[in-house]
Amino acid sequence: MDDAASGRAGRPKPQVLKGFRDHLPGSMILRQRIIGIVRDVFERHGFEPLDTPALEYLEVLTGKAGENEKLMYHFADQGGREVGLRYDLTVPLSRVVAMHQNELVLPFKRYHIAPVWRAEKPQRGRFREFWQCDADIAGSSSMLADAEVVAVMAEALTALGMPNFTIRISHRKLLEALGRAAGVPQSQAGSIYRAIDKLDKIGSEAVAQELMRSGIAPVAAERVLKLVTLRGEPATVLAELRPVLEGVAEARPAIDELEELFACLPDFGVPATVYRLDLALARGLDYYTGPVYEATVVEPKVGSVAGAGRYDGLIGTFLGRPVPATGISLGLERIIEVVHAYNLLSVPTTVADVLVTTFPDTTGASARIATQLREAGLRVDLSLQPTRGLGEQLKYAGRKGIPLAVIAGSAELAIGEAAIKDLRTQAQESHPLSELAAAARGMLAGVELPAG
Amino acid sequence: MDDAASGRAGRPKPQVLKGFRDHLPGSMILRQRIIGIVRDVFERHGFEPLDTPALEYLEVLTGKAGENEKLMYHFADQGGREVGLRYDLTVPLSRVVAMHQNELVLPFKRYHIAPVWRAEKPQRGRFREFWQCDADIAGSSSMLADAEVVAVMAEALTALGMPNFTIRISHRKLLEALGRAAGVPQSQAGSIYRAIDKLDKIGSEAVAQELMRSGIAPVAAERVLKLVTLRGEPATVLAELRPVLEGVAEARPAIDELEELFACLPDFGVPATVYRLDLALARGLDYYTGPVYEATVVEPKVGSVAGAGRYDGLIGTFLGRPVPATGISLGLERIIEVVHAYNLLSVPTTVADVLVTTFPDTTGASARIATQLREAGLRVDLSLQPTRGLGEQLKYAGRKGIPLAVIAGSAELAIGEAAIKDLRTQAQESHPLSELAAAARGMLAGVELPAG
Repeated sequence: MDDAASGRAGRPKPQVLKGFRDHLPGSMILRQRIIGIVRDVFERHGFEPLDTPALEYLEVLTGKAGENEKLMYHFADQGGREVGLRYDLTVPLSRVVAMHQNELVLPFKRYHIAPVWRAEKPQRGRFREFWQCDADIAGSSSMLADAEVVAVMAEALTALGMPNFTIRISHRKLLEALGRAAGVPQSQAGSIYRAIDKLDKIGSEAVAQELMRSGIAPVAAERVLKLVTLRGEPATVLAELRPVLEGVAEARPAIDELEELFACLPDFGVPATVYRLDLALARGLDYYTGPVYEATVVEPKVGSVAGAGRYDGLIGTFLGRPVPATGISLGLERIIEVVHAYNLLSVPTTVADVLVTTFPDTTGASARIATQLREAGLRVDLSLQPTRGLGEQLKYAGRKGIPLAVIAGSAELAIGEAAIKDLRTQAQESHPLSELAAAARGMLAGVELPAG
Repeated sequence: MDDAASGRAGRPKPQVLKGFRDHLPGSMILRQRIIGIVRDVFERHGFEPLDTPALEYLEVLTGKAGENEKLMYHFADQGGREVGLRYDLTVPLSRVVAMHQNELVLPFKRYHIAPVWRAEKPQRGRFREFWQCDADIAGSSSMLADAEVVAVMAEALTALGMPNFTIRISHRKLLEALGRAAGVPQSQAGSIYRAIDKLDKIGSEAVAQELMRSGIAPVAAERVLKLVTLRGEPATVLAELRPVLEGVAEARPAIDELEELFACLPDFGVPATVYRLDLALARGLDYYTGPVYEATVVEPKVGSVAGAGRYDGLIGTFLGRPVPATGISLGLERIIEVVHAYNLLSVPTTVADVLVTTFPDTTGASARIATQLREAGLRVDLSLQPTRGLGEQLKYAGRKGIPLAVIAGSAELAIGEAAIKDLRTQAQESHPLSELAAAARGMLAGVELPAG
């Protein structure tokens, strides 16, 4: 084809949409490894896999109220139906529980690891297509369920080697109650959420000023700040809060729930060092009704790596009767950022263990060697460039990061042998063909587990 | 919430779009198992994982010609860009190779296991969202690459236990050449494709009539049919064809390529019983340029379970210079249909090995037992219904298909013991807590590997 003649303008430009990414093998091998670790933790806790369609009726995604529509990729399909790409995995779960209520055994513990889409402005670390790893329990109002999902969150982050992560725990109904106890009228509850949410970023002073700017009396603002920044053993802080919140009706069950939850966590094997009560935790989503959780790492500053909470009303919006539910969501993209920054997981850059080189006169023998090594369980890339020289084939293996090369020239084949070259050390040795797989295995293990 | 008051009409209906499905745990466990088997085969051959965005510029998906647009879910996004959901994994691969040409080492062997979307009329076994498992090689024109992907196809179908599958192999340029050699003018080549494609379904007689109806002379139609139904050893049939096709220029390289491919397959460990030369194979997609493949099973009648071929021009439509490529695609949904029909893979119905029961006075102890069993590597579901009786908790385990239940009442806990009940046999025995994990493991292994 003549490039000049066909004209560059005649070709579609190879590009991806802003906020979307290709995951090339180096990145995918790490992603798959992380997903595998998270999945193992979910399954160890008896969570079962679920998958749901990427496209849903828009009404399912937004509810009747049409919330979050701006967040979504939505359009009319060929049949004129209003449809949208899911923007989280919690709403589809709620739809599933309502739709398949006769097939599912409650409590239903499911995990879902999949992409979601949001038509938001892309920023550093924020994408329009990103993966979530969710574990939720539908059909239990017991604080055991909340302890279970907090334990899963802690175990997953520990298994990934996350440095210094903290799970902050609070209760959706407590922040508003604290505001009321401090003398803030209910009509200004929203201002408290918005201001307190920034506490970590802008500090107490600035939050106090923001509270006052939104019309909250200085004394009330100061009291709110004092209450939400109480620190200490969860049980101690909750006991301190009880009398303060005596006059706020919804505070008592919230404190009861948190006390029960914190009492459970040690039995679930969650070390006290990885979580704390943080009354300033204000998770944005309106559907939370009980305990809320958020995990952050100190560095790098990626925001939260996991979060969520209890949402006893959401499934009821589909079903008509309430089904209590709680869960967590790990953000794969942010976890990957942390894993990268700290080099937490060592993964190979490629899939193959061995490149088998090929030459025009011996392609058949090389293919047979590759087949034999695969049958022995090795991952083998057979060179598809028999007309290139040995040097070029080894360069290909080196660029890919394949650790070993099998070199089978006609002279060696004639005596039933082939050489294995370790491309990491340049060491090379010959072996009878029947011992090739064992020798390759030994070389792979030898460098992975150096003596001494 | 008062159901009658809120009104059913006020709730979004919990439903999925036609042609889309939820995969509940029973189905997902099987899907994950199949994907795992296919992935292992791909990786054993050195194919590397790739993922690409679900949404692409529409121009990327359709090419400049706007082909296949009717097949696609497409719309204008918030920024007014024309975008679409990918309808296969081959076009995104071609875009990737063109876009990342400086990062990728050629030949590039990648696999991609992911959903694609087609806005077609749903039928039995045809969905609007379905998964493909693709393995492709970009950057090699060697028939070794084609032999490799045929070997991968054969190994994957074998690993899945597919009964009596056959890989039919032909060449994109041969069918047209056969038509010309039989005396059909080039302007009628399309009629041959369409008619021959139905040979398996409607038989020789009907195809002959269809050929004649479309204006092809009876003698030519008969000769075409005789040629495409030639049977025998690939090498023998190809040798017979050579003189017949002497006058058709493009036939010679096609025959050369097929001869080379068939000569390679035994060295790749592909048994001669699983493939055959089938000159009637007419794969529809216009972008094929060389050998084409299609795997079918005799029963159930699901059509092909895997297919594809060489497409040396597609990447060039993005890049301007041709990059040869070949590959295969396994259709997950059809494979699942066969696996179901023959019960080919035995997978558990649930994830958990053990349910640990809980009672109000011993929830802490039960949670500690669950934690201990998990640390020993078991997959454990802790009952979240401590206020339900033992019978109900065991019924929950039975309905889910969890094989074992640990029952720890306060009397047993007092002497440091708990009981394990095998819910498959109803056998129950008590063990010291420290031996619980080993005992559970033994019971799980015992039934999986019955003595004798």
